Order: sequence, then structure tokens, then C-alpha cells
Amino acid sequence: MSEAYRSLVELSDELAVINSASALLGWDQEVLLPRNGVEHRARQLAWMSGLSHRRWTGEEVGEWIASCESEFFGDGPEAANVREWRHDYERATALPVELVEEFAKTQSLAKVAWASARESSDFGQFAPFLTDLIELTRRKAEHWGGGGNLYDVLLDTYERGAKVADLDGLFGRYRDQLVPLVHEAVEGNRFDQARLLGDYPEEKQEALNREVAESIGFDFEAGRIDTAVHPFCSGMGPGDVRLTTRYDRTDFRKSLFGVLHETGHGLYEQGLPAEYYGQPVGQSVSLGVHESQSRLWENHVGRSPAFWEKWLGRAIEYFPGLSGVTVEEMVASVNQASLSHIRVDADEVTYDLHILLRYDLEKRIFAGELAVEDIPAAWNEEFERMFGERVKNDTEGCLQDIHWSMGIFGYFPTYTLGNLNASQLFAAAMNDSQVANGFDRAEYGPLLDWMRKRVHGQGRRLLPADLVERASGASVSENAHLTHLRKRYLER
Amino acid sequence: MSEAYRSLVELSDELAVINSASALLGWDQEVLLPRNGVEHRARQLAWMSGLSHRRWTGEEVGEWIASCESEFFGDGPEAANVREWRHDYERATALPVELVEEFAKTQSLAKVAWASARESSDFGQFAPFLTDLIELTRRKAEHWGGGGNLYDVLLDTYERGAKVADLDGLFGRYRDQLVPLVHEAVEGNRFDQARLLGDYPEEKQEALNREVAESIGFDFEAGRIDTAVHPFCSGMGPGDVRLTTRYDRTDFRKSLFGVLHETGHGLYEQGLPAEYYGQPVGQSVSLGVHESQSRLWENHVGRSPAFWEKWLGRAIEYFPGLSGVTVEEMVASVNQASLSHIRVDADEVTYDLHILLRYDLEKRIFAGELAVEDIPAAWNEEFERMFGERVKNDTEGCLQDIHWSMGIFGYFPTYTLGNLNASQLFAAAMNDSQVANGFDRAEYGPLLDWMRKRVHGQGRRLLPADLVERASGASVSENAHLTHLRKRYLER
Repeated sequence: MSEAYRSLVELSDELAVINSASALLGWDQEVLLPRNGVEHRARQLAWMSGLSHRRWTGEEVGEWIASCESEFFGDGPEAANVREWRHDYERATALPVELVEEFAKTQSLAKVAWASARESSDFGQFAPFLTDLIELTRRKAEHWGGGGNLYDVLLDTYERGAKVADLDGLFGRYRDQLVPLVHEAVEGNRFDQARLLGDYPEEKQEALNREVAESIGFDFEAGRIDTAVHPFCSGMGPGDVRLTTRYDRTDFRKSLFGVLHETGHGLYEQGLPAEYYGQPVGQSVSLGVHESQSRLWENHVGRSPAFWEKWLGRAIEYFPGLSGVTVEEMVASVNQASLSHIRVDADEVTYDLHILLRYDLEKRIFAGELAVEDIPAAWNEEFERMFGERVKNDTEGCLQDIHWSMGIFGYFPTYTLGNLNASQLFAAAMNDSQVANGFDRAEYGPLLDWMRKRVHGQGRRLLPADLVERASGASVSENAHLTHLRKRYLER
Repeated sequence: MSEAYRSLVELSDELAVINSASALLGWDQEVLLPRNGVEHRARQLAWMSGLSHRRWTGEEVGEWIASCESEFFGDGPEAANVREWRHDYERATALPVELVEEFAKTQSLAKVAWASARESSDFGQFAPFLTDLIELTRRKAEHWGGGGNLYDVLLDTYERGAKVADLDGLFGRYRDQLVPLVHEAVEGNRFDQARLLGDYPEEKQEALNREVAESIGFDFEAGRIDTAVHPFCSGMGPGDVRLTTRYDRTDFRKSLFGVLHETGHGLYEQGLPAEYYGQPVGQSVSLGVHESQSRLWENHVGRSPAFWEKWLGRAIEYFPGLSGVTVEEMVASVNQASLSHIRVDADEVTYDLHILLRYDLEKRIFAGELAVEDIPAAWNEEFERMFGERVKNDTEGCLQDIHWSMGIFGYFPTYTLGNLNASQLFAAAMNDSQVANGFDRAEYGPLLDWMRKRVHGQGRRLLPADLVERASGASVSENAHLTHLRKRYLER
């Protein structure tokens, strides 16, 4: 092993120590920080990310990487590390400082303008800031990408190797079948959700959630669950992975499915290869694969009949008001479709319509085919085409998400990739009879082992699409997910 | 203002940002960290303290300080900063790296040996490690002090400017009067503590504690109270001061007095001058003054009749089992003396006997007058002389405290200084009629204002003894505290 490689491993490790401290500071800010501590916390975080950036963009780092590129080939972890270091180094060094600063400044102005525009459903307030952010993002993508499709460069930020050329085909086929499926699913609804509303004390929800998370494999010696307004999962370094959730006193299912979702992320983090901590090969591979794990445990596991055969009785012990509810009713209640106009409220089957709409608009924006002032009309037209309903106003339309106000473009598609990956990985895992037998008894050790070996334990060795292909035996397609949705929503 | 001074302010500020992040990591370790995250947390903390140390011990720092020393004189904040920077710089740069490393290694071995020795009450197991730690501490003190009384150098680590020559007189006079006072107080006990034991649900204790802390001035927009095995208070930077406590379900007074104590520390932290954040002048002055604030609110306020006139009714609302208890009974119950052999269980009046014993031994050890193997006999003899009882075994004798196993010598006296400072500052404050009137109505705004102005807001401008002298009008003596103890324990 060369000196250069060892230097990169050491630096990666040191930066991981810094970044994991930042992760704790960020977690604390969402969960515990007193109001008056916010300003100082921002200083701490800025100092850490500044230091981390300066260390990683040093000239010697580029030289080390170049020298390693002629040293390692093939499929080994070293070659994978070098490939990903190169990617991260190019990304970190490509942008002029002025562009980074202008972007940050515009971001904070845009976020305020967006919040106000959303409040009053007035896209015009947000439009000039969105125009600036798109222009600055375009310049960033040009620096990063050096020609080619700009939106590809943005996709690659969140999903290494993802390309419009591939997604167009995949998403197009998916969409053609999903739109009629959603409408059929909505018509098939039979369960009255009001029947399950009641009084579910928070500490009992917490106890049930913890039991469920532990039973599917979350290690509480190496993690926690806390409360936060916006639920998330964050890895704070080896042996410390933290989830958050929020509670609705009238509906225990919200926190339960929230916890199942975040536990999916948490299991991935707890399953990363510890021996490569700090190096790319020790990190999660992409958002689209991360999301596959959260969706897998939330939807494939948590909304399955076998899961409720096991857990309904326990839920009734915690919440006696549920007695009389059957497994069939519970399963029906958690697999209901509705034409929600709001992405974050959408059910499993409708959710991707929201994403496909956003993907289409973002792609057209960065291809220069859609001007900012035309976004509301394009959004509304597309929404009506898919949902068969009209958007009430921009607050419930193109102003609903925070992402664009933060200059985040190319992120949305990873949600749909997460769903497709989840179904494809799950179907492949279920071909293993041990996994399938366990699943039928709501014992998920074999399913987790399968994911640990083929997904979690792989880190960033492969590009995400290759990882899914190798794990499932085929490149990702819409088929497994459509099969899953039909079974859940139509054959009931 | 010179370039050198500005550089020092900037560096101080940057190091405060790093150190405050460390404070959060340390706090989290005591309060939340999952067991498996401990190892990585140690790496994060070591990295941060290493970086902070390297930055502060750079050669340019010494040059900046030297140049500032000829720039600033007198009483201003700049001169005080320079004086304290010089002290901190000398302390940080004086030790050879090998000595620091050997000390750290010996510390971790000694801690394990101490725990085992304490378990089996076998001083012999701990003695060789204690011998090493004392020898290494002696070498450290020689590097720091450059001649003179070694124990003075150790005292100065925790209490700037404290000297054996002063403490001998102060502690000697105090001791002569305290020993008979303790015995008289113990004989005067009339209250049966068992009467107050009951069932006090944790969430009600928490609610009462919070109400009390808020009412005496703790700002919850800029702080929190959480649960930890070993209660402490830690400032995490401007706007974020965190206390911890622990709960005994059978006795609400334990967590309440714990919170009053830590709130005293917290009020000091919240009252530091924010405009000097990061600089010495923005920091607390010493352990002995910090402890004066915790003792003040715990003992002078929390154990006073006026406090219970106000709060007993509220406590009964939270804990109906208390109804029938009178203010006189409650006050008697929280001002009881007993000859506890264990320092951490000791009451206000007995506590300092434990400290005076340790001070005497430490002083003799570093004067070369007491060999390690003679410590148990010296401890036991001294204990019997003061307490009139025999030490049962070394576990309840010279092995009871963790401090020596961590190589901490010279720290104990700050507890007694805290008590003496508290009484002297309190007596001076009560000469102000607004403070006294407020106190009699259990309204502590004027008392807090008095401390804010004369203690908290002063930071490290003065040496601690000078601060107490200037705030109270006289250098610290045993008188105010003995008067206070007599009133509380004898005139009842």
C-alpha cells in the first residue's frame, strides 16, 4: 500500500471524526437545543464544515488521489475508495469560492421568500429568487460536469451515476402503469379511517415503537429514538445511530410507521462495514438506496398482513380501545390510497406521482425548456393530467416543498428510485426460502441478514445502480414495484 | 489595539467554538450516548482537545502575548485577558509531551486499580498507582511552578492565586470552630427524616424543580435540565447552559436540592459577559467562586425558612402526601447534621470536615511529609480526631473519592472555599435592603442582580480572592460562614 493511499485513509478518517461531531451538533439542534443557542450552534457548524472543506481541498489531496489512480484497479475496496475520493474531490474543488458564497446568500434569502410566498400562495414573490437559484445551480453544474446534460450532473449529486437517459425510460414506463393503478386503488378503498382514531398516550406509542424497532433488528446499544418536529435518521459514527419521530395522540400509526421508516435508515447505518469507517467504502452508497431500506421496512414489512398478525395483539395490549379491530381491517387501514395534493401526506401508491411530476419539471427547467414564470401552469396542468383533479392554489401546488427554496434540484427522483429499489430488493430476497418463511412468521432476521450482506455491508464499493443489480440479479425496473402495489392495493 | 491583541482575541474565539463543541460531546456522553458509541466519542474528544492544544501552543501565540504585555497595564479587560492568556499559555506549553502521555496512561490504569481497590477495600492495590500519579504530578508542578511550594502550584490549577500560606490560616481558624460546632449540631437533631419519605413520581419532581429553577432566574430559553447519573452543569456556549440531576422516587428533596445547586452554577454561566465570549474575561473565574454560587442557591436560599414559606404549599400540590408537614418541620428536615463518613453524602455543616482532612493530607504528601503507604493510617487518625468515630474500612475512608485516581490534587479545597465565599457574598448582599427584603419574601431578583453585577459579570477580570474581596468588601474569612452555620444548626 502506497504512502499516498495511507495518507488518504488517514485524512478520510480524521474528516469522519470531524463530520460525525457535526452530525451530533446538527442532531442536537433538531432535538434539544434551547432557542437562544441557535446562533452559536451555527458558528460551530460553520467552523467544522469550513475546516473539513479546507482539509479535503488541499493540493496534496489531489496529488495523492492521482498517484493512487495508477496504483489500484479492479473491484477491490481500494479501487472503489479511489474512485469515490476522486468524485468527492472534484466536487469539492470545482466551485469558485464566490459562487459558493453567492449560492449560500441566495439560499437564505430564497428560503424566507419561499416561506412568505407559500403563506400567501403568491408564486410571484418567490419567482425571482428561484430564477437566481436555478441560474446559480446551472453554473455549479457546469463547473462540476464540464459539458453534457446539466440535470445529469445534479442527479449524480444525490444518486451517483443516475442519468436522464435511463430515468426517462424507467420513469416513463412506471408512470404509464401507475396513473391508472392509483385511480383504481382509490376507488377500491373500503376502510373508514375514523374507526381507528382514538386516544393513544405518547409513552405507550413510544414503548410499542421501541419494541417493534428492536424486534426488526435495531440495536439500542448502538442507537436511540428521540422526538423531533421533522423526523430523520442520522449516523453519528460507529455505535451511535439516532432516529427521531413525532407523535399524534389521536393516531398511533403515524409514529409507528415513522419509526419503521427511520429504523430502515437506521438499520442501513448500523450495518455499514465498520472496518472501513471514514472511507467511502464504509459509507452508504446513495439516497436512492438509503430510501429503499426505509421504504422496505415501512411498507413491505410494516404494512403486510404477517406483520399485523404478530403485532396487532400487542398493539391492543397497549391500546385497549383497538380491541375488536381485526388483522384484515388493520391491514386495509394502512394500505389506503387517496389523491392527496400534498406529497408528504401521500400514501405509498400515490407518492410517486408527486415525484414524477417534479422530475419532469426539473428536467425541463435545466434543459432550458421551462421558464420560471411558467412553472405554476406547467405544474397544475401536469397534476391535473395525473390526478384528474385541479390544484387549488400554489400553496398546495408548486410552492408546497422546501427543496427548491434551498437550491436542491435532482433530489426528488431518489424517492421514487427508493420505492423501485425497495420492491426489487424485497422480491429478490423473498426468493430465498429462509427469508420468505421468516417473513410469513413476522421474523425478520433472515431478511435483515440478506440486506446486511448485499446492501448495507457493501458501503460505496459499487455505484448504486450496480449495487441493486448485483444484489437483486437484474437492473432496477418498475415491474417488482408495480406487482407489489397491485397486490397490496387491488387484490384485497 | 495591536495586531497581536486582535490575533489573540480571534484565536481565543475560535478555540471557544471548538471547546464548546467538545462540551456538547461531553454532555451528550453523560446524558444520552448509547453504550457502543463511547469509543468513537473518545476519539472525537481527543481530536478536538488535540487540535485546540496545538493551536494554543503555537510559537506565534507566545510572541503575541509577549507583545501585548508591554501594551496593556492596569485594571482594564485587555490587561486581564493578557494576564490570563499568559497563565494559560505557560500551563499549556510547560509540559514535555512524554510527561503528558505518561500521565494519561497512568491515569487510566490508576482509575481501574482504584475501582478494584475500593471494591475490596484494599489500599495496597491502589498504592503503586497513586505513588506514580503523585510523582508525575510533582513533575508537572515543577514544570509549571519553577520552584516554590509545589502544592501552591496545584492549588493554582483550580483556584488562581490560592496559596498554602493563606489557606493554612483560614482553614485552621475555621476548623477550630467547626469541629465543636458539628458535634453540637448533630446532638441538636430533632427531625425524623423517615416522616418525609414517600412516593414522589419523577415527572412531578421534574415539574416542581423546573418551576423553582425558573423562579430563581434560570432562563430556559438559554438552557435545559436533563437526567444524568452524576449531576453536573455545563455551559455549551452563549444561550445554552445545561444542568443535569437524578431522581430518588422516595425523596423529592434530593433532586430539588441537586437542581438548586446546579442552577446556581447555571446562573453563573448564564450571567457571564457575552461581549467577551471566548476571552478569559468572558469566563468564570475559578472553581471556588463557581461553587460559591451553587452553594448559595442550594443552601442559603433553598434551606431557608423564607424559601419554604413560599414553596411548601406548591410542593404539597405536587405531592399531596406532604400535607400536614409544617414549614418549620420542612426547614428542620433540610438542615440536619449527621456524622456521615462519606463526603458526597455529607450535610452542609459536616461537609467541610471532609475537605479539611483531604487538604491536610494532600499538603503533607506534596511537602514530602507523608508517604503513600501511610495515607490510610493518617486518614483514619485525622478522621477520628475530627469526627470522634473510627473509619470502618478504606472503602469508606481514603478510597472513597475518585479524584486522586484521576491525578487530581489541589481540587478539594475549592469546595470549602466555595462554602466560605458563598456565606461571605451572601452576607454582603443581604446588607443591601432590597436584597434582604426580596429574600424575606422568597423573591430573588435583587439577590441575582447583586451576584450578576459583582460576580457573574466580572468573568476572569480579577483573581478569585480579589473578586470576592471587592464584591463583599473584605477578604474571605471563616466568620460569615460560621455565623450562618450557627444560625442554621444551633439556633433552631
